[in-house]
Amino acid sequence: MALQTTPSPEKRRGSMTTEESEIQQTVERFNKAFDARNLEEIMSFYAPDVVAFDMMPPLQIVGRDAYRENWKKYVTGMKGQTSCKIRDLQIGASGDTAFCHFLAHMTGTTTKDEKMDIWMRQTVCFRKENGKWLIVHENYSVPVDMETDKALWNLDPDKKTAH
Amino acid sequence: MALQTTPSPEKRRGSMTTEESEIQQTVERFNKAFDARNLEEIMSFYAPDVVAFDMMPPLQIVGRDAYRENWKKYVTGMKGQTSCKIRDLQIGASGDTAFCHFLAHMTGTTTKDEKMDIWMRQTVCFRKENGKWLIVHENYSVPVDMETDKALWNLDPDKKTAH
Repeated sequence: MALQTTPSPEKRRGSMTTEESEIQQTVERFNKAFDARNLEEIMSFYAPDVVAFDMMPPLQIVGRDAYRENWKKYVTGMKGQTSCKIRDLQIGASGDTAFCHFLAHMTGTTTKDEKMDIWMRQTVCFRKENGKWLIVHENYSVPVDMETDKALWNLDPDKKTAH
Repeated sequence: MALQTTPSPEKRRGSMTTEESEIQQTVERFNKAFDARNLEEIMSFYAPDVVAFDMMPPLQIVGRDAYRENWKKYVTGMKGQTSCKIRDLQIGASGDTAFCHFLAHMTGTTTKDEKMDIWMRQTVCFRKENGKWLIVHENYSVPVDMETDKALWNLDPDKKTAH
């Protein structure tokens, strides 16, 4: 089974390189800023030339200033306590280049009183500049039901095959 | 404008490192296999432990053997000539770690005679093993209309801001 070739998180943590460890810490710091809905702090993680593939349109967003508008919509569109718990974090890092991907379970309430309880996939890519890892790209997504064209917000994260 | 801080494709090509150039060539070879719908060749690009965030469910697919099932659905679900043209390719690469992202314009006809004409976002992450770049992760996505929950298959790739 292909699953058995995937190193367990514990095994990975034990053998983490300095770069991988730095990325893990960056993801943890980012998620704190995310939970706090601190727009300034969130934006400080991005490179000025970030290219973002966000959950909401447009198809791509080029530049931190433009991306800020999407983030502002999220930050001001939620109220009270929101939570983002991640799992299955995997990291690749070498020299000044890194990427990571994980599943994110987001819960909260919108300002329109709609409950949000979704599972997203996130891929985040980094470039190290002057000793700091900056996000140069990210892709936030959910799968689509090919029959109805509907976004699938609540898929079971433990179902890992197409069968 | 943030856009001005993004290097033009021409500028990037001129200053490409060996690793970036290898990734560009890998993407080009992959796209040829994709257009030919050659399942064996497509699968040869993936690491055994690939983690894929595909357009169709499940939320994540772990392992090349499981991912093959999704690819088989695509390959056998299309007929005649299909085409995938990519643009805005950007690459980050250093040592044994690399990522790239681009927009893909896919056209073709399904075996149910439905015309496909879509713009997708693709993020692809690589690890170099024994001198060969293997895909260890990818995220295929389209944005979602937050009002209707519908996948947005045909967004204008030139609209780069949320305004």
